[in-house]
Amino acid sequence: MARALALAEQSLYISSPNPHVGCVIVDAAGRLLGEGFTQAAGQAHAEVMALRDAQARGNEVRGATAYVTLEPCSHHGRTGPCCEALAGAGIARVVASLQDPNPKVGGRGFERLRAAGIAVEVGPGAEASRELNIGFFSRMVRGTPWVRMKIAASLDGTTALGNGASQWITSAAARADGHAWRARACAVLTGIGTVLEDDPRLDVREVPTPRQPRLVVVDSRLELPRSARLLQTGREVLVYAAVDDSPARRILESEGASVIALPGDHGKVDLAAMLRDLAAREVNELHVEAGFKLNGSLVREGLVDEFLLYLAPRLLGPGRGLAAIGPFDALAQGVPLAFRGVQPVGPDLRVLARIPGRDAF
Amino acid sequence: MARALALAEQSLYISSPNPHVGCVIVDAAGRLLGEGFTQAAGQAHAEVMALRDAQARGNEVRGATAYVTLEPCSHHGRTGPCCEALAGAGIARVVASLQDPNPKVGGRGFERLRAAGIAVEVGPGAEASRELNIGFFSRMVRGTPWVRMKIAASLDGTTALGNGASQWITSAAARADGHAWRARACAVLTGIGTVLEDDPRLDVREVPTPRQPRLVVVDSRLELPRSARLLQTGREVLVYAAVDDSPARRILESEGASVIALPGDHGKVDLAAMLRDLAAREVNELHVEAGFKLNGSLVREGLVDEFLLYLAPRLLGPGRGLAAIGPFDALAQGVPLAFRGVQPVGPDLRVLARIPGRDAF
Repeated sequence: MARALALAEQSLYISSPNPHVGCVIVDAAGRLLGEGFTQAAGQAHAEVMALRDAQARGNEVRGATAYVTLEPCSHHGRTGPCCEALAGAGIARVVASLQDPNPKVGGRGFERLRAAGIAVEVGPGAEASRELNIGFFSRMVRGTPWVRMKIAASLDGTTALGNGASQWITSAAARADGHAWRARACAVLTGIGTVLEDDPRLDVREVPTPRQPRLVVVDSRLELPRSARLLQTGREVLVYAAVDDSPARRILESEGASVIALPGDHGKVDLAAMLRDLAAREVNELHVEAGFKLNGSLVREGLVDEFLLYLAPRLLGPGRGLAAIGPFDALAQGVPLAFRGVQPVGPDLRVLARIPGRDAF
Repeated sequence: MARALALAEQSLYISSPNPHVGCVIVDAAGRLLGEGFTQAAGQAHAEVMALRDAQARGNEVRGATAYVTLEPCSHHGRTGPCCEALAGAGIARVVASLQDPNPKVGGRGFERLRAAGIAVEVGPGAEASRELNIGFFSRMVRGTPWVRMKIAASLDGTTALGNGASQWITSAAARADGHAWRARACAVLTGIGTVLEDDPRLDVREVPTPRQPRLVVVDSRLELPRSARLLQTGREVLVYAAVDDSPARRILESEGASVIALPGDHGKVDLAAMLRDLAAREVNELHVEAGFKLNGSLVREGLVDEFLLYLAPRLLGPGRGLAAIGPFDALAQGVPLAFRGVQPVGPDLRVLARIPGRDAF
């Protein structure tokens, strides 16, 4: 199963919005017959890739065991059901990490396999597989994406000086690492403030990737200029607005963007509704790279699941902080987190922290 | 030498202001004959402890090799010179990590050993031994203590809310770890602001230690109340003031404190002069646990060598930061650091960061 999980990781930048799944087929002696991982949406799933691989190697899989990191699908989606492929190939036993959270599958894959006379075992690698697919599980179970907020700051928590200077607080190594996290996300979200200030592309440049994440801009008053660089990248751009300003909408639509009006309170976008809409658009992991204000709104509204924080070895004193929250009167009013891991990235530190309980769905 | 270094570490809370030294005596076959580490000031050094240990075990050390993490002393200080003890015992070879930075020794130990016909090798374990004795080296070479600033903050760099609330941002585990760092210091420094606000004891309670570090209070206007808890701990207390207010001085002296007037600019204590004075008083490592303002003064004046930062998994928003520095107009004006290590301590992170170049003396 460790090998199957490693294969699943290879689909990290590829298979979204489908889950990241790996499959290994072995014979009774434990000899590898074939292996594979889920390809881009509409293409083969891990099980079919592993069966094909076995065939290409000239290996007979009849009576073999398939280790797969998620329940094989039972439905005809963009591809045929994997259960049928496994049964048709004569696989005798399936060991799966987890049941599929997709309501279209949800145990029916296992039922089908058992009905076809295949022995089924569920559990090994469950935690790792779920973490690898936290966004897919979030979308399927909660109906919202997994929201990961990326922030680069100095060790004293400053993301920009008072005059806005922020390029670059962290190192090239940290920025490249950040691109790897962008690459695994289905979409990158930013705010109009960041666009007007930095005019970023927010694409994946520093690591090789077969696909670019979609772009989401929170732009309450539809101020996104048609010259914005993120409109020039050829990716799908979703602009969430609180107004339905037809001329502005038409200009952005002529640039290929989709404009979605979701007005909330105080002339702002309804961010919770936006997340539900993004899940409906098959966004599993949402990678937030926004400024102090939008970060604050997302945190205050309880919409953030985890933080991906790069801390530079520098003290910058007062300026903009991580997110516009507080001021608080008591320590208990702060936003509680739990560290998930910390590691050096070049001269910087990468800290992963999760809001406790957010992953309990 | 690894064993000798491990022994040296055992003297971490014990041997100050003498260096932390370990010694292992082995025979030609590498068999351990005796080992020891430097005891409290005025008591036996590592070499003598190892010779005594060998004797207690009934081992003959004639012709043996002594591994010692610092040059054996050649002078009659509070104890007799170790060179004579080693030569007298018939040690044939000494492997030492480093030359002693103490100008009273400075290579003369090695000379004496060689003059006594002992083979001398220098170098193995040099870096680890120097790090273990960074405070001793600092005092001997720079004439100032090694200044380590301890700060507890939320992940977003807040050390106290606007209303001053700060107890406790970090966990009991982090506070206990902080006590271990206090324990290895020769003195703990704080400011009058922290005393008036929190009335701390600043002693070592959470880890066992045979000695308490001395206390240093920066108290420009001699406002330290005689009821302050840190005066009740029976330790040596040094109060640095910018005024020479005789009545206030007499009150503090009657409580057992030493008052040193070192006026600097703007009615403040001359902090650089204070560090020189502390070194003259045999302070190797100075552990700073002060507030935002005094931290800022020490950082701005370039007097801090490294930071010991505990980061709690919490966002607290605006409040007091790590140190009153800035505001800056350009990122390059920030205080550059280099991370030395990071590790989880309970739910918190402990980050060690050093100002680059500060250890090059």
